[in-house]
Amino acid sequence: MIRVTVWNEFQHERTQEKVKEIYPDGIHTCIAKFLGQEEDLSVRTAVFDEEEHGLTEEVLANTDVLVFWNHMLQEEFSDDVAERVRRHVLAGMGLVVLHSGHYSKIMRKLLGTSMTLRWRHGDRERLFCTCPTHPIAQGIPAWVDIPEEEMYGEFFDIPKPDDVVFTGWFAGGEVFRSGCTFTRGLGKIFYFQPGHEEYPIYHMPVIQKIIKNGVRWCVPVVRRPAPLDNAWVNPSTEEVYLSSHQK
Amino acid sequence: MIRVTVWNEFQHERTQEKVKEIYPDGIHTCIAKFLGQEEDLSVRTAVFDEEEHGLTEEVLANTDVLVFWNHMLQEEFSDDVAERVRRHVLAGMGLVVLHSGHYSKIMRKLLGTSMTLRWRHGDRERLFCTCPTHPIAQGIPAWVDIPEEEMYGEFFDIPKPDDVVFTGWFAGGEVFRSGCTFTRGLGKIFYFQPGHEEYPIYHMPVIQKIIKNGVRWCVPVVRRPAPLDNAWVNPSTEEVYLSSHQK
Amino acid sequence: MIRVTVWNEFQHERTQEKVKEIYPDGIHTCIAKFLGQEEDLSVRTAVFDEEEHGLTEEVLANTDVLVFWNHMLQEEFSDDVAERVRRHVLAGMGLVVLHSGHYSKIMRKLLGTSMTLRWRHGDRERLFCTCPTHPIAQGIPAWVDIPEEEMYGEFFDIPKPDDVVFTGWFAGGEVFRSGCTFTRGLGKIFYFQPGHEEYPIYHMPVIQKIIKNGVRWCVPVVRRPAPLDNAWVNPSTEEVYLSSHQK
Amino acid sequence: MIRVTVWNEFQHERTQEKVKEIYPDGIHTCIAKFLGQEEDLSVRTAVFDEEEHGLTEEVLANTDVLVFWNHMLQEEFSDDVAERVRRHVLAGMGLVVLHSGHYSKIMRKLLGTSMTLRWRHGDRERLFCTCPTHPIAQGIPAWVDIPEEEMYGEFFDIPKPDDVVFTGWFAGGEVFRSGCTFTRGLGKIFYFQPGHEEYPIYHMPVIQKIIKNGVRWCVPVVRRPAPLDNAWVNPSTEEVYLSSHQK
Repeated sequence: MIRVTVWNEFQHERTQEKVKEIYPDGIHTCIAKFLGQEEDLSVRTAVFDEEEHGLTEEVLANTDVLVFWNHMLQEEFSDDVAERVRRHVLAGMGLVVLHSGHYSKIMRKLLGTSMTLRWRHGDRERLFCTCPTHPIAQGIPAWVDIPEEEMYGEFFDIPKPDDVVFTGWFAGGEVFRSGCTFTRGLGKIFYFQPGHEEYPIYHMPVIQKIIKNGVRWCVPVVRRPAPLDNAWVNPSTEEVYLSSHQK
Repeated sequence: MIRVTVWNEFQHERTQEKVKEIYPDGIHTCIAKFLGQEEDLSVRTAVFDEEEHGLTEEVLANTDVLVFWNHMLQEEFSDDVAERVRRHVLAGMGLVVLHSGHYSKIMRKLLGTSMTLRWRHGDRERLFCTCPTHPIAQGIPAWVDIPEEEMYGEFFDIPKPDDVVFTGWFAGGEVFRSGCTFTRGLGKIFYFQPGHEEYPIYHMPVIQKIIKNGVRWCVPVVRRPAPLDNAWVNPSTEEVYLSSHQK
Repeated sequence: MIRVTVWNEFQHERTQEKVKEIYPDGIHTCIAKFLGQEEDLSVRTAVFDEEEHGLTEEVLANTDVLVFWNHMLQEEFSDDVAERVRRHVLAGMGLVVLHSGHYSKIMRKLLGTSMTLRWRHGDRERLFCTCPTHPIAQGIPAWVDIPEEEMYGEFFDIPKPDDVVFTGWFAGGEVFRSGCTFTRGLGKIFYFQPGHEEYPIYHMPVIQKIIKNGVRWCVPVVRRPAPLDNAWVNPSTEEVYLSSHQK
Repeated sequence: MIRVTVWNEFQHERTQEKVKEIYPDGIHTCIAKFLGQEEDLSVRTAVFDEEEHGLTEEVLANTDVLVFWNHMLQEEFSDDVAERVRRHVLAGMGLVVLHSGHYSKIMRKLLGTSMTLRWRHGDRERLFCTCPTHPIAQGIPAWVDIPEEEMYGEFFDIPKPDDVVFTGWFAGGEVFRSGCTFTRGLGKIFYFQPGHEEYPIYHMPVIQKIIKNGVRWCVPVVRRPAPLDNAWVNPSTEEVYLSSHQK
């Protein structure tokens, strides 16, 4: 059973009518619902307003994959919690970051770059699959149309991704690396650009399928506490071998 | 003229007799001297004990490539200065990090992983060139023997490098990605493992040649302030084009 | 059910006493046996002396992953069959290439480089895991000792691998990228260096575990005939979209 | 002095009026002219109709970078000459491949994949720089508009590039990895998509600047005959070292 925690800032859905209509119980509830229909996934949610943003040491220790959406409160997010999430990712916890989460403290800490991009409201996106061998692309068509989406455009200041699974085309004249994978420490990270809150993007079955694939891809291959320090090793690996083989 | 700043912690050379004999004026002075013999390089130095570690806004703004060696005072290094260096790297400044500098705050901030590894005193290293097309490998033999070196061994917790230019073999039974390149923002980073302070490694001509190559490779292709925030763009790139082409 | 075909040249085992003792029924039978014990794998074998080397169109069309070992008869291998295997890999068939198979016509055709390396009989290898997040590393220790192995050393003339899962240390003073992954077309390729025929390496449980992991990783995400030519598309993707959305 | 050979099929320019008007002396002459204005470049040309396509052993041995444009006669190109070019690239010769040269025998041999893509006449392209630290991007704006261009669209069946320097946006609704770098053996390869023969794209100064940058980036770091076979090495690297250091 893959233990998934879906985290959402949960601000827009309570303050903006348009967003409330699309996600009456919050983006997290929508995502948790379609993930929860999968037999291999066990899903819980957490939001900004909970204590420690609901991402306590205990919650993270019992999370295989964290799905993360935020937007307005990037700077208000606790430094300590961001550092805690980073530590768990380095120790193996998977991380699926959606849309404006690219600029979260978590991502800036894990990836190190400015994470900036160009953006504009009111556009239309076409996602092309540019890495069809990737497990996240399994069952996804050669391209996917998103009728309404916020434009995110290059240059996107990220480290070179391991794979660019999806490349976005925008009608307004821009391109974007819309689906990118990274590995940091023992943790796998999938950044997926679609999902502006004003459009019902997480209601689209094909987008749900991509997020499900992303969650499964992010499941840790191995999980153990990251070392807190460099490790002195003595005697040498070679001496250990020789002492056990040559008498 | 490439403006190089060589930074050194400069502690061991003043407190340990063995190190003092090898580098009587400090590692930085040794490195600055062999770099300074190159006609295209203009070199200055800075050390930990200077105010702001000698890495003021003004010094960094006038540095094309920063060469960095530290060891003992990783945690004592100023957070603010580390963040300042990171900002300049993202804006294009090149960075050559030597030996135990892998665990500097600067590297942890830029690369995001734990940067941990296995290590042991008293070994011997052989550097193999595993990327002979890289400019840093130019003029370097297929392998280089370092008669005395501290062992650094895998697993080395770094993000996947752009290129592994050198892979190290250690007589004690370990391997290491000893020469790695990364790109972050507009900045190029070369991490080069050799250079434990107790051995005269920076006096070896072939090691000097690798560091010179590294400095030249790290020269910025473009340099500009990194954006402080994401950029709203309106009208769209397409509308700009159409308005100028279709009347 | 994953359909695996294990292919072996099957020459040494019939002509050299030492090899016959280790693999009395051939390397292919040894590999097929330990793979066949897995519930999700359905295994058959083929060898050089069969017609079309046993790799007919029909066999390949019914193979999800081909495991390939060869050595002596690199140049005698049919060009047509090598091209057929390449075509099936580009169409999605997985490929696990062992040891001296690095120099097979199949690999030279798929990877394009000379595939040359340095080698020597009579050495000892230690495999370090240099990509612990990779599915092929699942359940494998930080390093694995192989008491007797032929040395394969850098520079290994391959294109930059997607991942270097294992890096080999040899007692004679060399390193090697011993476990590498590549993607070509829709096909995944895992090259794994261990397995000189004179040593009982494929009897080692940990080596068997790595090969099992490799087979599972190579299972196609999608499989379809590779296009024989470039594809003219008209009307444009955009016109298709607009005609279905704007009335 | 960098020795450049510009190769062109030179068919369209002699048979189609529209193309003849744009490139009266052939695409090769146009490219050779703007490259020849650079002080560090020494340029010659060769075309399909010459003996051995003008790419004799002697010409290639005296070429640092080969610039290659072809279209109609992909299959008529000599297998032997394609193999000869491949051998020289593996030995260090740089290769800049333009537009439909993606499907040349040379590229299919060097990269191993089908090299197929989607295409359509009559579109408009915007090139975004998605790797601003790359030397090929030096001095190039964040994006470049090409008023008329043939559409090349994803999925483009290439091995994962070392860098995607430019990503193309097409008005008809497609994206493309329009500027890609690869390394094969000791040779560097830059594939650059723009340049359909019916539009005056190689007359655009910014396109010329990209090609100049590409040529300079492809200059060999080292050049030597590629080994024809694997190399037996004895004694071991370690014995060589020990015999010279321990008496």
